[in-house]
Formats: sequence, C-alpha cells, structure tokens
Amino acid sequence: MTDINNDPKSTKALNSQLVKDDVKRAVSRRSAIKSGLALMSGGAIAASTASVANAVTPDPLITEIQDWNRYLGEGVDARPYGSPSQFESEAVRRDVPWLTADAKSSVNFTPLHKLEGVITPNGLCFERHHGGIAEIDPADHRLMINGLVDTPLIFTMEDLKRFPRENKVYFLECAANSGMEWRGAQLNGCQFTHGMVHNVMYTGVPLKYLLAEAGVKTAGKWVLPEGGDASHMTRSIPLDKCLDDCLVATHMNGEALRPEQGYPMRLVVPGWEGNMWIKWLRRIEIGDKPWHQREETSKYTDLLEDGLARRFTWVMDVKSVITNPSPQAPIDHGRGQTVLSGLAWSGHGKVSRVDVSIDGGRNWKPARLDGPSWSRSVHRFYYDFNWDGSELLLQSRAVDEFGNVQPTKNALRAQRGVNSIYHNNSIQTWHIKPDGSAENVEVS
Amino acid sequence: MTDINNDPKSTKALNSQLVKDDVKRAVSRRSAIKSGLALMSGGAIAASTASVANAVTPDPLITEIQDWNRYLGEGVDARPYGSPSQFESEAVRRDVPWLTADAKSSVNFTPLHKLEGVITPNGLCFERHHGGIAEIDPADHRLMINGLVDTPLIFTMEDLKRFPRENKVYFLECAANSGMEWRGAQLNGCQFTHGMVHNVMYTGVPLKYLLAEAGVKTAGKWVLPEGGDASHMTRSIPLDKCLDDCLVATHMNGEALRPEQGYPMRLVVPGWEGNMWIKWLRRIEIGDKPWHQREETSKYTDLLEDGLARRFTWVMDVKSVITNPSPQAPIDHGRGQTVLSGLAWSGHGKVSRVDVSIDGGRNWKPARLDGPSWSRSVHRFYYDFNWDGSELLLQSRAVDEFGNVQPTKNALRAQRGVNSIYHNNSIQTWHIKPDGSAENVEVS
Repeated sequence: MTDINNDPKSTKALNSQLVKDDVKRAVSRRSAIKSGLALMSGGAIAASTASVANAVTPDPLITEIQDWNRYLGEGVDARPYGSPSQFESEAVRRDVPWLTADAKSSVNFTPLHKLEGVITPNGLCFERHHGGIAEIDPADHRLMINGLVDTPLIFTMEDLKRFPRENKVYFLECAANSGMEWRGAQLNGCQFTHGMVHNVMYTGVPLKYLLAEAGVKTAGKWVLPEGGDASHMTRSIPLDKCLDDCLVATHMNGEALRPEQGYPMRLVVPGWEGNMWIKWLRRIEIGDKPWHQREETSKYTDLLEDGLARRFTWVMDVKSVITNPSPQAPIDHGRGQTVLSGLAWSGHGKVSRVDVSIDGGRNWKPARLDGPSWSRSVHRFYYDFNWDGSELLLQSRAVDEFGNVQPTKNALRAQRGVNSIYHNNSIQTWHIKPDGSAENVEVS
Repeated sequence: MTDINNDPKSTKALNSQLVKDDVKRAVSRRSAIKSGLALMSGGAIAASTASVANAVTPDPLITEIQDWNRYLGEGVDARPYGSPSQFESEAVRRDVPWLTADAKSSVNFTPLHKLEGVITPNGLCFERHHGGIAEIDPADHRLMINGLVDTPLIFTMEDLKRFPRENKVYFLECAANSGMEWRGAQLNGCQFTHGMVHNVMYTGVPLKYLLAEAGVKTAGKWVLPEGGDASHMTRSIPLDKCLDDCLVATHMNGEALRPEQGYPMRLVVPGWEGNMWIKWLRRIEIGDKPWHQREETSKYTDLLEDGLARRFTWVMDVKSVITNPSPQAPIDHGRGQTVLSGLAWSGHGKVSRVDVSIDGGRNWKPARLDGPSWSRSVHRFYYDFNWDGSELLLQSRAVDEFGNVQPTKNALRAQRGVNSIYHNNSIQTWHIKPDGSAENVEVS
C-alpha cells in the first residue's frame, strides 16, 4: 500500500504542536462565545457551567441506539425528484386569503425566517400572479419581436438555444413588498412584511442579442414585453435598460424555470420592481414612447400626500430585514451567545455595509456580511451577541455601494406620506421579549 | 404625475442616436451568429434566409389565442412548496438497478444534461446511501465530540445555532464518478458517466469552532466523523483539514438539508471525495492515528496494476464534461449556430481554463467560462460554433489554477492501469452524428 502520509509535506502539516497552536488560536478567537456547552467525560456527566440548559443529564439519544441507526431507510429509487424532510413542513410559502378577492390574482410569501445563505430555493420563491399560473408546453411556446425593428422575428425554444447565455444572480422584489407597513406595524412575521423577495441564479440570453438580431430602428426608444398568461401583463421599459443587463431567462437555480415563475421563459430586469420581470414572455414590441398600460398608471405608481403620484419608479431602493430572531422565529435556546441573521439588498448595486441595533436605533454596531456579494443580489449578514434575557428592539440598516442609506419609517413617511402601497424600504423593528418571542412594533 | 423621463440624465441615456449606435455595435459583435431566424413583417411572412427550418409558415401559436392566454390558471394557494413543470419530467435523478444488489445501498445520478448555471437544485442532487435514507427528527438529533479532547461535548441543533456560520459553494463528487469508464466507453449519457457530482451553497458552522470548544489535545492528529444512519459510515480525516475549511452544514441552497443529503447535519469536506462528507453526522472522535475503517481499506482505495493500492487519495482531481450536446441531449435544431455547454471542477482550487475540441483532441480552442468562479466549485463553460452537419468528436479539457491538466483516458490508464474504480478524471469523448445524435466513444 502507498500511504501518502509518508509525504513529508503532509507529515509537516500534521505536526502535533503546530496543530495544537492552531487550535489555541481558534479558541482565542472564539473566546467571546465560549458558552460552556453541556459537558460529558467518558460515561460520567459533568455539570453544565453556563447558559445552555439541555443535555446535562445522561442523554438516551446518545447512549441508546435509535431507529434510524438500526433500520435501513428508503433507497435511491424512492425519490427521482427530491423534496424536503417531513420535519420541515413549516418552511412553505404562505398566502393571506383576505389580501385579495381571489387567489388567482394574488400573492404568497417566501418564508425568509426558515432560510439561510443567499439562494432562495425554487420551491419557496414567492409567487405573484395576475391571472393564475399559465401551464405552457415549451414546444408550443413562441417569442415574437415586433414594432420599430428592421426584421420582425419569431423565436422557438430551439432558436433561443443558439444564442450565447449568461449566468447571473439577482434579487426580485415586488414593488408592494412591505406595503402594509406604510400605515404602521401590521403583519407579524418577516415572511409577511418582507417575503415578496427572492434571489435566484438565472441562466438566460442577454436581451440585447435578440434585439440586435431584429435590428432596432433609430426611432425605437421603449420596449413593451408581454406575458403569455391570461392577464397579458405588459410594462414599458426604456430601451437602454434592455440593452444594458436584461436577460430572457430559461433557467433558475440550475433547472428550468418553475411554472409560477414564467416557464418556459421570463424577462429578468435586474434591480427593478418585480412586476416588470414579465413571465411567460411571448412578445416584445419596440416603440418610440411608453404605452401607459394599466400596470404603470392605476397600479405601480406611488400616490403622494398632495394627490400627485410618482411614476416610473423602477429601481428598488436599499433595504434590509432581520430574519432571525423574528416573530415566526423566536429565540428558543435561552440566554447567552446568540446569532442574529438577516438579508440586505439594493437595486442600485452591491450592499457595502449593514448595521444592527438592539436598542431601537440608539446605538448601531456593524454586522458581518458573509457569502457572495453581487450587484443587485441579496447579501447575508450576521451579528453575534450575548443576550442577557432583557427586552430588545432589533433593527438593521443597510448601506449600498453608492452611499444610499435605508431610511427610518418616519423619515420615509415625511417624504412620501402614507397613501402609497409601493417602494417601502424603511427600517423594520422587532420587539424581543424576555421569553424570546418577537413582535412587529414601531419606535418613534 | 411626476415623470422621471424629465430627468435630463434619463433623456440623455435614451437619446435615439446613442441607442442606435449601441444596437449597431451589438449587431457587429453578434455578426458571427447572425442566423437569419424566421422572418415576419406585419401580417406577411417573409422567406427564411438561412438554416433555421421552423416558423417560416404562418404560425397559429402566434396568430391564435391559446388556452393559456384565455383561461385563468392555478392560484397562489395551490403550491405551498413548488415543483417543476409537468413538461420537465425528464429532469430527474436516475438509478441503474443492475449496478448494486439493493437500492438501499446504491447510487442515483444527477441529470447534468438538463441543468444550466452552476447550482444543482436540491431535488436533483445525486444520492449515495450505504444504508438507505435516515429520517431524523432534528429535535432528537445529537452531535457528540469525544476522544482526545479536553472536554467531550454533546450539541443539540439549538446549541449549534449559537455558533458563527459561513456560506460557501462547493462541489461534491463521489470518488467512483466515471468509474465504469476505466475499462472503456460504457454508459451512454453524461448523467451516468459524470452524474455523481453536485454543486451546492452550504450554510454551516466551521468545524474548527466546535473542535476549539471541546479543546483538541496535543496528541490529537486525526478525526473520525460518524454517520447516524444504519450504515454508521466512518472515515479518517487529518486534523489539519478539519481546522482548515470543513463545515458542519445544516442548510443547502438556502433551505434545510434534504433527508438524502444528511438532514439535519452533514460534514462538508471541500474538494475531497464525497464519501468523506459524512451525512446524518452524529459523532466526531479525535485520535492520534487513522482508524483504517472498511470504507478506507476494502473500499475507496485504488488498486494498481502491480497489486498494490493507492490509499488516502482524498482530493478530486481537475475534470470536465460536455453536458450539451451529449447522448441524452442531441442537437435537435439542425445545422448552423450551436452552443456547446459543460461543467468543469477541481478539488485543488479554481478552474482557470477549459479547452474544447470538435475533432477528437487534434485541435483545441478556448471555451468561455461564465458565472461565478469559486475554489472547489463547478464552473460553467460554453463554446459557440457553427455546425456544418458533419460528424464530430467532442472533448473538453480543464486546467486548474495550479496548472493541473485533465489527462486523456489512455494517459491515466498508463499511470494507474484499469483495476481501479475510483478517481477517473480523464477526458470524455462524444461522437456527434449527422442527425445530431451523440454516443459515448473512445478515441485512440
């Protein structure tokens, strides 16, 4: 046998004193969270030294063989397409029946409090339909480009496969995310206050390649993508955005788009409000001015105090939310070392900084950003602190690479009033109580 | 109404001449793939100019209203946890019943030919079980650290939540991936030749933090993680690897681990063979030498021509495969502009370059790498070429940042013989026929 431990490089790396030093350094770095977890030495159980209450008595889950150690489980033929554990039944999208007249033109919400990292699993990406989910056989799907072009074109799925593809991660946020919070703390859980956002790796053809194939005429300034579902969703988009970074996407997180996300193709409009990311994309018209469709006049405009409305407010501003702890995810391990976690994003670019307050915005400390940092993708942040069991008012405040700072609720209201539904990017507050439970509150 | 088009910056950006110039430049860049897709002007249909055969006659899929444009679909209450389109039934994991005696100790394969980007969806990550899927209630799960430590510890899931987390994307490849190919072209499809690999964003606690909490004694040099399933999988891992980059992961691609991937916790051993990434992790023992368990002696060692075996061959070497076209994914759009796509990875670090040959390795051209490039994560590559309908011998060859080059099958055999099952990272060949179909072949 050839043993690569005889390699002097490996032997050196394994030198016990070096390793011991490494461990000592790790212990030193970690001293702040040395929490005195339950101790056990040989067969004897030592006393717990600190705040972790469980596992101080002999634990049959360790000392006795359990069913899952004893019996064979399901084989590799059981799940051609896998699904979550039966013990994760709370990690689901939830709709709020009273929000709309019918579930076919409504929304459900991403369970942000059950998620980690920055990728939203496809099965949990929030849904917003205006005419229910179109079920389209890709063999029967066509994409037409018409209007102010040299050559109107029709693309099949196979045609689209001939064009170069890109892979990019972007958040998609509904303009109405946090909309209920304009008039006060309304919904008890980040799933409902902030769950109209998801973050996905798309694979798609840059729209500029398809427009170049058709040839946009000099007079062409605006683009009208149209959805193939029964709502025929249409939005006016400036041509420069389409030539910049829009994609005609066919895949999300590695696999084909899901039906509720526009299968077999959707428009990706990075950093801009979700309503513009037309699903079941069937037609792209080029024009010389915006069309003023229903969804950019009576809807998706921001009514101000003076009766005027802001419109064409496409970019989603810098925003963040603490996902854990939160009303649906209380602190359930008692006092002591606690990891606070959350998400931050900006339609302008990268998030450069997130600060966290545990006293309702009086004092701020920098959070730790971890994981990939991409432009117009969500960022994961953490804040490690020692919870003494007292009441807390948790807030997070994001800053993006262009210096945009997430505002307080009152600062935003002073600017926009409370008539609006859309574009509420203000700071969220969770009230943590001594029992670890959390509630949606406002601070003055 | 406030119209942000009055903003001079927007107006400038939308200046029609500038836009036209942009489009012209895009057309110029794209001239090589100007494929003359089906033309349509107003109601009249112009003649097709080139190689795309379909859509040259009036297309009722465009001119007539379809059912999915006419009728409302399912609402937001229909799918609390979503699933793929009914038209994606081919995008599933597949097992090969004759490979093993029982599906409870077997493998199934990731459908690489149906995927895009670099993230493998959780439902499609290949499975390898040695005792079936353990179904564990996280409330009943414990992780013990014992052996050469100052303080043996038992962790509950709640205890683990107190420790800092990291988010990292890594490939996991079974050491036996491509193992059937040692003795010749055997399996017809990249799902079967290369599908024992997946690529996932993990969230987990660095193992070094947990080891520091227990305190590794000076004599401690090796680590034995043990699985909580009925196979009690155990592997010896050098302590320096555990202190470097191993994670105790609880989440994959944003959500809780799937049962078949070790729910509620698994070990992540970046770049090293998948068998060491212990699932359903229940115990970590520290020792002063390797344990020589079954899975590192009779299995997962590489039998050479002279009867000796290589062992402790942990790192997965640089490798790549063309996923499209391939035997399960023929060219089905005819001649002309064609996008070749594939995956490349290295257990040593990042992939720095992939070359593609269409003539069985005589001539090589650089592929385009696209999407995130992370150390020990898969990389996506593309090669755009004009297929003239002739026979092709497609190959890809990856090079990593340390200069490791993927070998030919014969070069690897010259070094290792053909007794081995594991660590076949050699170049794969697909024979493309004039009808666009593909076959697994060898070239001398």
